Parts: sequence; C-alpha cells; structure tokens
Amino acid sequence: MALIVQKYGGTSMGSIDRIKHVAKRVKCWHDNGHQTVVVVSAMSGETNRLIDLAHQISPNPDPREYDQMVSTGEQVSISLLAMALKEAGVDAVSYTGGQVAIKTDSTHNKARIDAIDDSKLKTALDAGKVVIVAGFQGVDKQGNVTTLGRGGSDTTGVALAAALKADECQIYTDVDGVYTTDPRITSKAKKLDKITFEEMLEMASLGSKVLQIRSVEFAGKYQVPLRVLSSFDDNIDGKFDDNFKQNVGTLITIDEGNNMEKAVISGIAFNRDEAKIVVRGVPDNPGVASAILSPIGRSNIEIDMIVQNISDNGLTDFTFTVHHNDLDKALHILNTEVKNDIGAKAIIGDDKVVKVSLVGVGMRSHAGVASTMFQTLAENNINIEMISTSEIKISVLVQEQHLEKAVKSLHTAFGLDRESGVSEVAGLD
Amino acid sequence: MALIVQKYGGTSMGSIDRIKHVAKRVKCWHDNGHQTVVVVSAMSGETNRLIDLAHQISPNPDPREYDQMVSTGEQVSISLLAMALKEAGVDAVSYTGGQVAIKTDSTHNKARIDAIDDSKLKTALDAGKVVIVAGFQGVDKQGNVTTLGRGGSDTTGVALAAALKADECQIYTDVDGVYTTDPRITSKAKKLDKITFEEMLEMASLGSKVLQIRSVEFAGKYQVPLRVLSSFDDNIDGKFDDNFKQNVGTLITIDEGNNMEKAVISGIAFNRDEAKIVVRGVPDNPGVASAILSPIGRSNIEIDMIVQNISDNGLTDFTFTVHHNDLDKALHILNTEVKNDIGAKAIIGDDKVVKVSLVGVGMRSHAGVASTMFQTLAENNINIEMISTSEIKISVLVQEQHLEKAVKSLHTAFGLDRESGVSEVAGLD
Repeated sequence: MALIVQKYGGTSMGSIDRIKHVAKRVKCWHDNGHQTVVVVSAMSGETNRLIDLAHQISPNPDPREYDQMVSTGEQVSISLLAMALKEAGVDAVSYTGGQVAIKTDSTHNKARIDAIDDSKLKTALDAGKVVIVAGFQGVDKQGNVTTLGRGGSDTTGVALAAALKADECQIYTDVDGVYTTDPRITSKAKKLDKITFEEMLEMASLGSKVLQIRSVEFAGKYQVPLRVLSSFDDNIDGKFDDNFKQNVGTLITIDEGNNMEKAVISGIAFNRDEAKIVVRGVPDNPGVASAILSPIGRSNIEIDMIVQNISDNGLTDFTFTVHHNDLDKALHILNTEVKNDIGAKAIIGDDKVVKVSLVGVGMRSHAGVASTMFQTLAENNINIEMISTSEIKISVLVQEQHLEKAVKSLHTAFGLDRESGVSEVAGLD
Repeated sequence: MALIVQKYGGTSMGSIDRIKHVAKRVKCWHDNGHQTVVVVSAMSGETNRLIDLAHQISPNPDPREYDQMVSTGEQVSISLLAMALKEAGVDAVSYTGGQVAIKTDSTHNKARIDAIDDSKLKTALDAGKVVIVAGFQGVDKQGNVTTLGRGGSDTTGVALAAALKADECQIYTDVDGVYTTDPRITSKAKKLDKITFEEMLEMASLGSKVLQIRSVEFAGKYQVPLRVLSSFDDNIDGKFDDNFKQNVGTLITIDEGNNMEKAVISGIAFNRDEAKIVVRGVPDNPGVASAILSPIGRSNIEIDMIVQNISDNGLTDFTFTVHHNDLDKALHILNTEVKNDIGAKAIIGDDKVVKVSLVGVGMRSHAGVASTMFQTLAENNINIEMISTSEIKISVLVQEQHLEKAVKSLHTAFGLDRESGVSEVAGLD
C-alpha cells in the first residue's frame, strides 16, 4: 500500500464525462489499496469565465476579491469529483485550500505556501476515504482566500505530497510524459522514462510547458518523486510493480549518479519568445553594460542571454535578448535614454530568432558536447548568433527559419532518435 | 448614523449591470454616513446551473458536497459586488459564511444558524468599510460548508441584523412592498406601510412569497425591524427621516398596540395549492379522525384545514385539505388502507378549491369580522366549503372560480381599497 497524490488539470476535469473518467481512475487506485489524495483544477474554461465577469466590472479587479472569486472554480470541481466517487461507491471528501488548511502568505494572485496542516487529511485517509483538495488556492493568516497563480495546482499537488511524505506525486495531463523534444518538430522525439529535477527545470524554463516550474523546484527541494502521465490513457490500472518502478509516463526524480548508462543529453528544448537587441559601436569602457541594462531592468523587462563581443579599435557590440513582447519597449528606452549618453552608433532589434538548448546532467562529465553541437549546426549551415551555457545546459540563438533543421539534426547527433519514426502524441507546447 | 443590513436577491444581482446598480445604491447609503452590511444571493440562474451539474453526476448528490458546491454561487456574487464598490471608490470587503463565521448545525442543505461571530464584521465596519456577506450559507463545527436551503439569504440578513443589533434589515426584491392582496387580483390592492411580524407570517404562510417564513420568524423573535422594498426603484437615496420612519417599502415590525388608528384587517391572502378530501358517511366514533389521518401523516403528507361535521344518524362526514400535489397519493392511501377499516361510504377529492384568508392583528379586539366576511361572501353567492380560524386569521375554502370575486368583495368590505384604482406593481406571487 502506498500513499499517492494525484493531480488532474482543467482539461482532465473539462466535462462531467471527464470527471466521471477521473473518478474511475481514482477508484482503481483506491481499490488496489493505495491511500489516495487528489488535487484538481477548475473545469477548463471556468476560470476564464470568472475572470471575464471580473473584468466586466473593473480592468484591475481588487486582488483579494479576485482570489475570493476565482477560487470557486476549483471548489466546484472538488465537489463534483467527490460526488462522482460517492456515486461509484468510494467514500470521498473534498476540502478547499482554506479547509485543509493550506496556509500561504498574503500575496494575492501569486501567494506562496508557508505550511500545510495535514491533520484533516490524515484522519480522512486513515478512515479509508479518498481526499480531494482544491488546487491553486490557500488561505492566509487572516482567513483570506489566496491563489498561487496560473498553474498553481501542480504546486499544490507537490506541496501536499511533501507534507504527507507521499510515495509519489502523479501529475495527470493531456500528454503522456516528457519528450526528448517537441514531437511536432521531429517525429523521432522519444518519451523519457526518467529525468532529473534539474533537467526538468531547464526543460520547463525553456518552454516545455508540461509542468509549472515552481512545482518542479518544490519537488526537487523536498525530493518528492514526481510523475507526469496522461489522464487520457486507459492502461494505468493503479498497480505498481516493485518499488514503484512503473514504466508509464515520465518520472522526475533525483540524479542517481548512474550516468554510465545514461545519455549525455536528455532533451532539446527551444523557445520562440526571444528577441535580440544589438547595441552597435559602443566604447569599450567599464560601466557601459550597466548603462545599457539598468534602464531596461528598471522598466521590469527581463533580460535572458547577454554577450559582449571583443573590442575592435576601442569599440564593441553589446548584444542581449528579451521577451519578444518587450522588444518595442526596450528599443524605445535605448533610443531615448541610452543611445546618446553612451555614444552608441546604432540600436538594432530582431524578433525572428529562437533559442535552442541542449539539456542533460550527463553534460557535466562529458567534454565535447559544445563542439559536437556547434559542428552539427555548422554542417547544416546554421549560423549561431549567441551562445550561453550553464552546468547542465548549452543554449544557442539562431534564426527562426532554422529551428526545425537545428532540432532535428541535434536530436540525431546526440542519439536521441527513437527507432520507429512515428510519434504518438500531440505535442508538449 | 445608523447600522443597516441590506439583502439583495438573485434577480437584483442578475447581471453585471444589476450588480453595478446595487453598488450604486450601497454607495449612496455609505456616503450618507451609515454603516452598511450587504447580504447577497447568487446571480439568478447560477444556483440552477450548479445543481444541474451535480444532477448530471448523481440524482441524489452527497449533501455535504452539494453544499460545498452550490455555496460558490454566492461566493462569486460577494466578490463581484466588492469589486464594483471598490471601482466606485468605496472600501469594501467580502466574506463567505465560513469566513464570518456564521456557525450552523450540520444539517446539510437546510442547516440552522447557531451563532454568528461578529468580530470581523465590526472591525471592518469600524474601519469604514462596507461589509458584504454571502447569503444562504454557513459553516459547521468541523468546518464543513452548510447551506440554509432555498431563500436562506433572507434568514442570513435577519440573523446578521440581530447579531449586530442593526437599526433595520432591508430586504430588496423585485416588488416594492407587501400589499393588502395580490394586485393581479384587484387593482385596488394597496401597499402597506407597516405590518406586524405575526401578520406577515400569516400572509407568507398563505402564499404571499415576498419573504421566506423563517426569516420573518427570526426577525420577530429578535425584534429586528424588517423592511421589504424594491431594488428596481431609483428613489431611495440612503437618507432616513426622523427615527427611521421612511415611507418606502413595507416595514415589518412589532405590534405597537395603537390599533385605534389601524384597520381591523391588514390584508387578504389566498392559496391556490389546496385540495379538499371528504370522507363520507363514517361512524361518529372516537378514534375515527385518527384512523383517517394517521396513515396520511405517516406518508409525510401535510394536512392543513380539518373539519368534522355534526353527526346525523350516527354517521358523519370528515373533511380535510392537503397540498394539491399530494391529492392522488392521499386518495390512494385512504382507498386502500382506510376506507374498509372504518366503513366509510365514499372518499371524494376536489382540487378546484382555493383558500381565502383575512389577516390582521386588529381582529383580536373586533368581534364581527367573521360575520362580515360570511355575509359579504353570501351576498356574492359564494358558498363556503370549510372554515378555519386562528387568533389573527380567518380562512375559508371556496371554489376556485370564485377567487377573484371573493377577494375583491372582501377587499372593499373591509375598507382596504386604495383611492386610485391603478396598481403600479407586477404582483407578489
């Protein structure tokens, strides 16, 4: 018997039929003797319906009242799932974030979990009940309803799993796992059976939207085994094989250090949201980088990659990337506040760029990953515009038109291709 | 400065525009210096939408989960109204029943209020805020959400007014007050400026559906002045004249005993839901009434009027009324379980009857009300089939076809006609 936390998102709870389907799956785990806690999101569409009502009243609704209101979406879901389980003969009880209580700070709309009182949950589990908890929400010290921000239900699931010391936290979604890259780019993309927390964090932050980043951080911090799997797959029957080594979905776990058998690279992520800005011909003096980036930072524009080329006749080019939505704003700031002060020759923006990244903990012990990457891209006539690296990641910026060719060639070069060329899933994005 | 509790029903909160209208009215009271607590129902249609979802899962949804779910309707309303007030520049805060806390017993779907913690409300009022409270809901000792049953928002309003010792509890609805009778029956129906709790209870129980009976009982018990008025009337400006003697809506209050100036009869109520059952030719023995009514009672059929005629040759007729929905069931029970046992000659049902009732505390000190009533009906050739009386009410059962003539002639006979014959309202039913 294990203690399992399962999380179902809005699509999995999207209709009464889908909710009955979730109930069937939960019943299966329960009937196999596992203690089961279920975290659910609002039915898909419901949160947007509520937000639309609020926006009809105010463009900037009061944050406390906004949380009080949108949290009802999950409250409806938990009740419906509890009803469906009772109808299927399984004793179940639903709790809102406040009822648990999931205690958060008072930062409405993006609160952080401070503590979870597990007494009600344990009592209900010990009484043989399935416990259903509203995702995405909590309660602050004064009893105000708070929400954790979009996607916060994943965080609720992981936090409950950590508090209850669950054997596994299962995130049910509309894809059947984490892939080596987006299967819409290459049909050779392969589902990963396992990935480390660090790799998943890099993949997630680079645009693989399977899991919310905060939930992965949380799971890593508390070492909660996290499994991504599909709620649309009917073959998961609530039975574990030895030591929970199920071969379904993708298990996100700690690095077990057996890199001998492990691929050097776990996956290839990419991000289409980048825009490049080049500040041409600036004097190569101390303080220039700060003079360029400070006004950008003060406007709350986030900067991703930064490169400064070597000096030529005392002049240099300074290049960085921002989210493409911020490009016009950043160019305006540079042209009005910065250009003349630092004596730059030109400010050039380009939003036809993508960032392609190799991710893998195996990279730490393997030199030559970078050279293989650069060589592969060169052989395919893909020019690299910027490079940045971290311990388990190498990212390059290339022109958007090269995205597919870059990903496919790297996928093959690093041995990630699956044997059959047919992809089974819709994609990760 | 007064402390006012206002309650707005589902129609008054039926759309974003209506909610903004309510915010405007509340702001007016607030700007006039009154401390204002607002109790709201779910937006009209919302509760039915939720119930429909539940019924798609189960014909008999689990009562706890049902309450957990339907209570979200009011939670959305309170947040939207708070947003609208903030948008209009009025500081406001919303509380669910659980947040207040409104403590109830654990009888899900029809809980009763045990106690109200007024500390949060008083703190917010003293800070100059408008306090908005979700109607219809509370929380039991274990923290489970409970609901008070349909129409329970009126009860929430009165209970809060009692707990806070409010100067007045105002129930805003889609009619502008309580009338001497249904204006759809006679255009001479007059709006009452004042009515006693006892009279209102009799009027309500007889089919004037302006207020939920429990809320009137509650208001009477705690002597909370209760005012019924229209949320569609734009002339109520938040200003009281001396001693809250506003001449708007209908004030329901204690009997001040100054019956000298008061009409003998306050109003004429009627009820189309009755059906008459006559058990003909039963032996006039002790125990016959019980033999007839016990099986009916055991089937949870409520009995209203009961008459036993005088004996003739040792046989008598036993007559009573039930809700017309229960007529067939009652006739079946009598024919199969009772008729032969007691040796009745015939069982006859009639659902073409209505009950017409005179209501008034003035009746206590005036003999002759009954004789005036019977004489008026006789002059109009209306046969009285049954009679029952209480301290402040006389009811007669007549054929349905006589309803309008009976109400009109009694309305005139007891001096209730308004001078102008034009009615301004849509009706009470």
